[in-house]
Amino acid sequence: MTRNRRAKLVKIGQMVVESEEAPVPGGNEYLIKITAVGVCGSDVHYFEHGKIGRFVVEAPLVLGHEAAGVIVGAGPGADTARIGHRVAVEPGVPCGRCMQCRSGGYNLCPDVRFLATPPIDGAFADYIVHSADFVYDVPDDLSDEQAALCEPLSVGIWANRRAGVRCGDRVLVTGCGPIGLMAAQVAREFGAHVILSDVVPSRRDAARSLGFDNLHDATSSPVDGSGIVADVLVECTGVADVALRAIKTLTPGGRAVLVGMAPEEEQALPVAVIQSKEIMLTGVFRYANTYPLAIELFHQGRIQVDPIVGARFSLEDVTAALKISRIDPSCIKPMVLPG
Amino acid sequence: MTRNRRAKLVKIGQMVVESEEAPVPGGNEYLIKITAVGVCGSDVHYFEHGKIGRFVVEAPLVLGHEAAGVIVGAGPGADTARIGHRVAVEPGVPCGRCMQCRSGGYNLCPDVRFLATPPIDGAFADYIVHSADFVYDVPDDLSDEQAALCEPLSVGIWANRRAGVRCGDRVLVTGCGPIGLMAAQVAREFGAHVILSDVVPSRRDAARSLGFDNLHDATSSPVDGSGIVADVLVECTGVADVALRAIKTLTPGGRAVLVGMAPEEEQALPVAVIQSKEIMLTGVFRYANTYPLAIELFHQGRIQVDPIVGARFSLEDVTAALKISRIDPSCIKPMVLPG
Amino acid sequence: MTRNRRAKLVKIGQMVVESEEAPVPGGNEYLIKITAVGVCGSDVHYFEHGKIGRFVVEAPLVLGHEAAGVIVGAGPGADTARIGHRVAVEPGVPCGRCMQCRSGGYNLCPDVRFLATPPIDGAFADYIVHSADFVYDVPDDLSDEQAALCEPLSVGIWANRRAGVRCGDRVLVTGCGPIGLMAAQVAREFGAHVILSDVVPSRRDAARSLGFDNLHDATSSPVDGSGIVADVLVECTGVADVALRAIKTLTPGGRAVLVGMAPEEEQALPVAVIQSKEIMLTGVFRYANTYPLAIELFHQGRIQVDPIVGARFSLEDVTAALKISRIDPSCIKPMVLPG
Amino acid sequence: MTRNRRAKLVKIGQMVVESEEAPVPGGNEYLIKITAVGVCGSDVHYFEHGKIGRFVVEAPLVLGHEAAGVIVGAGPGADTARIGHRVAVEPGVPCGRCMQCRSGGYNLCPDVRFLATPPIDGAFADYIVHSADFVYDVPDDLSDEQAALCEPLSVGIWANRRAGVRCGDRVLVTGCGPIGLMAAQVAREFGAHVILSDVVPSRRDAARSLGFDNLHDATSSPVDGSGIVADVLVECTGVADVALRAIKTLTPGGRAVLVGMAPEEEQALPVAVIQSKEIMLTGVFRYANTYPLAIELFHQGRIQVDPIVGARFSLEDVTAALKISRIDPSCIKPMVLPG
Repeated sequence: MTRNRRAKLVKIGQMVVESEEAPVPGGNEYLIKITAVGVCGSDVHYFEHGKIGRFVVEAPLVLGHEAAGVIVGAGPGADTARIGHRVAVEPGVPCGRCMQCRSGGYNLCPDVRFLATPPIDGAFADYIVHSADFVYDVPDDLSDEQAALCEPLSVGIWANRRAGVRCGDRVLVTGCGPIGLMAAQVAREFGAHVILSDVVPSRRDAARSLGFDNLHDATSSPVDGSGIVADVLVECTGVADVALRAIKTLTPGGRAVLVGMAPEEEQALPVAVIQSKEIMLTGVFRYANTYPLAIELFHQGRIQVDPIVGARFSLEDVTAALKISRIDPSCIKPMVLPG
Repeated sequence: MTRNRRAKLVKIGQMVVESEEAPVPGGNEYLIKITAVGVCGSDVHYFEHGKIGRFVVEAPLVLGHEAAGVIVGAGPGADTARIGHRVAVEPGVPCGRCMQCRSGGYNLCPDVRFLATPPIDGAFADYIVHSADFVYDVPDDLSDEQAALCEPLSVGIWANRRAGVRCGDRVLVTGCGPIGLMAAQVAREFGAHVILSDVVPSRRDAARSLGFDNLHDATSSPVDGSGIVADVLVECTGVADVALRAIKTLTPGGRAVLVGMAPEEEQALPVAVIQSKEIMLTGVFRYANTYPLAIELFHQGRIQVDPIVGARFSLEDVTAALKISRIDPSCIKPMVLPG
Repeated sequence: MTRNRRAKLVKIGQMVVESEEAPVPGGNEYLIKITAVGVCGSDVHYFEHGKIGRFVVEAPLVLGHEAAGVIVGAGPGADTARIGHRVAVEPGVPCGRCMQCRSGGYNLCPDVRFLATPPIDGAFADYIVHSADFVYDVPDDLSDEQAALCEPLSVGIWANRRAGVRCGDRVLVTGCGPIGLMAAQVAREFGAHVILSDVVPSRRDAARSLGFDNLHDATSSPVDGSGIVADVLVECTGVADVALRAIKTLTPGGRAVLVGMAPEEEQALPVAVIQSKEIMLTGVFRYANTYPLAIELFHQGRIQVDPIVGARFSLEDVTAALKISRIDPSCIKPMVLPG
Repeated sequence: MTRNRRAKLVKIGQMVVESEEAPVPGGNEYLIKITAVGVCGSDVHYFEHGKIGRFVVEAPLVLGHEAAGVIVGAGPGADTARIGHRVAVEPGVPCGRCMQCRSGGYNLCPDVRFLATPPIDGAFADYIVHSADFVYDVPDDLSDEQAALCEPLSVGIWANRRAGVRCGDRVLVTGCGPIGLMAAQVAREFGAHVILSDVVPSRRDAARSLGFDNLHDATSSPVDGSGIVADVLVECTGVADVALRAIKTLTPGGRAVLVGMAPEEEQALPVAVIQSKEIMLTGVFRYANTYPLAIELFHQGRIQVDPIVGARFSLEDVTAALKISRIDPSCIKPMVLPG
């Protein structure tokens, strides 16, 4: 019988790896042997706080939702020809039936089941089962880590789509963390000029190594008043004051997408500027219909992850993986490799 | 020689009517004898505060920008065949050359000249001159007041366009002032279901007399938690707390347009909701390409102004016209009739 | 045991009513007792030709796809609380999993199962089973016939959405058949001015009785050169020459939606005009996400069907129902009432 | 007194270079010394046929509209600080006042004055005068030829915008002439995968030298049935049969933009496919708001013209320039260099 180690958050700040029987795939599901999982800020947040907004961890929860693996088993109705295929796992499985699902916005499905979001267990594990419809074959030229990082890349794609980024737009990305650096690379592939800011020098260095040269230290040079002019803002810090100031750099008719999540439910925004410049402001909640493009962008070598992936951990060392980004901000994206 | 009385704001709270020589229309301009001018909240604000945001009255300023009249003279290049025509006056004349003008967003033209916005004089006068391109013939079946009120109707049209209101949408309009009641009527003509709220009973009565029956008292029944569910919010109160609460009533993928102008440059907005529901939020700054539709809607009898127009004043009584809405909130839209 | 009469096309021009055992609803399906079914031009086409384009009737096929009924049984997983509810039946059930389904265009799903489209049987029957997700409760104030006619109304909604019809647009609808009259009424509810044309006087009379007064006889007064100017064309005749001429009446930037299906795979279109005026031209293939609005429009009394429904037939008289529109063009929409 | 040589079409097939007095710039106009002019297919068409569609050459007409130069004089109101600047000339000057101009579609302005379109003279000349608003400064790193070729690049930008090309789209460009190769390069910068076809090997070679490797010989391998699958078609041959076949390669929901102009006013199009796949089809008429992006793309080195510019001619040899593309199809874009 196959054993399945799973790393669970049992209380704030404490992960336990338990070995259990591997799950059995249900109808239209696959059993997936996990090869790589990215550590997301939301995993760290659950680890540190036990909740994110309305999502509260009330029972031991397996964390991890940026996952890649290999299909090793198929439930009823799932195509067995895909067994053995390397895959990227889209973590959210929507109901497929509600009005949001039918109209193209399945990320807003009220009944979505999303890995590592209570009460759904995640992918810091040897095995998971997942809907066959949300598991995507990847070409051989994608590494396991790239396959896993289709998830944050999807956030970057979605943010750019929501902003309507077009060739020639000046896109200001605030925050050079994993999402910011993904969003910035996507903006470049959409044909935009990218401007980046971060307070951490090592993160600006990571941006520089990705080929970006319009980099700003948001501490010494606040984005408002800094001479930065942008058509689009992709806010990836989650710092309320950054959003407030950065929106003011937008041109009339500009667009702002708030990706970073602030601790506060409410934030002060420059409404007078939003009105007088007719800024379009929105947020993103995950993504929809992005995985095929994410895989294609990696396949074509248009997105780099080397300066982003900071350190690799075994499943047993998941606690270290969850702590490292607080200790070493230059470790932008830790990876957990269960294999 | 034709004398031209003009009502000028000379200092906060003081209007003076001066008689001057009528102006001479320049190239592509008309001389227009004013028949009706609506009193806008911005006129009242200038009267009470001497400024609106960055626009400061530094010299005597003729107020009034919701104007209708008759063409009585033509400058070089303006079609003389239109002399004698009754017209609605679109108060903003953009440069026509900048990138905003060329791309369809002439309301965002940085060089727009807008009536009664410092330092451009307005239409509380017997005569004004105005660009022939922004003066629209109206059919006989439009009253002078309707012709003047194409201006606030334009705000309502623009708000609905910016919100992308579609047939079947549930549109919550907060505030039953002149803009709210115009926006609500436009939403109805776009095919939407309209929900209205106001704290003032007489304003809800005005809404009711316009045929709306989904009316809420925003005081006793805060819009958030009131059971109201909307796809679109058109916020017309300018009260920061209303925006904050009303946005929360929106469905996932909802849209919010902030029309009312709050005194504060910055306002708290429910960013967590904007993100988790992917709300699209924007503001409006005047309007563009709305006058033909405004005239057509009046012509077809689809927009009513009787419950909105509250009192009529001569040019000499302009001070009373500027004060009445503070005294009698049931006087939703005072009109100045210079003729 | 419940018997189920079903009217099948057994060969070109021949319908046979057979009595069989009522079907058993599968997972997430309902058993529906049919109350009313509209006769569509596609039913007539199958009856007369045995095929429509690539869809060929190769075995006896129950026709009829514009259906309403009452839920009388529920399969596993279908909510039994809905038993007894009167419903409109959306005839196409998409896979819910492909990229088209996920991105909001489920009408383009390659695996859609659509009533009365070979090899899927239709609704000229006492009972059908259908996916619970595509069966919509209707309010008491909708008649059975209105519930059934949510289907052609959906075509009208979709055509207007695809054309991006907005308040104030001049919309030319060519053809006053059932689809044309539905599309015209929807255009009116979207806020448009509607212009209609047909060669048959009785059909223009039907349009007139629906409140339309801008009616043209397309025979004597070809739409091109007739002085008609439109922003949008909704072509509902399926006559190639009408499309060719009517497109030329569009203003620059106009939009044309070809709804009527011509017998030819290819048609001559005025490409020089499409280019010089940058006309946006498209077609419609069924519809997506329209039923809730269709039901709402009927509920609010905004769509009329009395001048459209021409005659009513029992299930046994289905052959007459399929023949009448050829005999009597004033019978715009025959209905089959199995009950 | 400055002499101004101008190359005029005096009758079909005959160009005459006449020396005249240089023109005097009017209000808001510049006098521009021409440095480079591309030879467009429309110039060749006027040369060979004396007309294009409704535009008929009835008096000697200076040809050439893809122009670059240096500002050497300023009329009243034009900023004299720009004298000496190297510029790209946008050839169409719209009225700036009509509804098309105001709503962002100035290319559809009925009163546009466009170089080398009867009766407006073009730029095969030493000097022209042109509206200051449609003359764009170019950086030093743009060659004169690149500045001139902002015009066909604009067509490529506009075609991609009209098609809504997005990152990841598969874009089929039929025809590797100057417009096709520009459109293909723009599609690549929009993030698309580009597929190209042409019957002429040397033109496919030009495409290959621009870095494209998905090239098809449209003769031996008709695009329909060739296995090509595209989301977007940008048709640049003007051959009716190519449009007819290529549209069939589109995926459901695909978009087709007809750029090439066929000799026939009407063409057969696959309407059944347009309907069943809900293809969006449109054409382009020139472009609007493209020059800033065209200049930026050249400045950033993202668009190459070396394989496109085929031969250079003096103003005196303009006849040879107009004839060469018929003689040598490998000469994709001849240039006239008056200097």
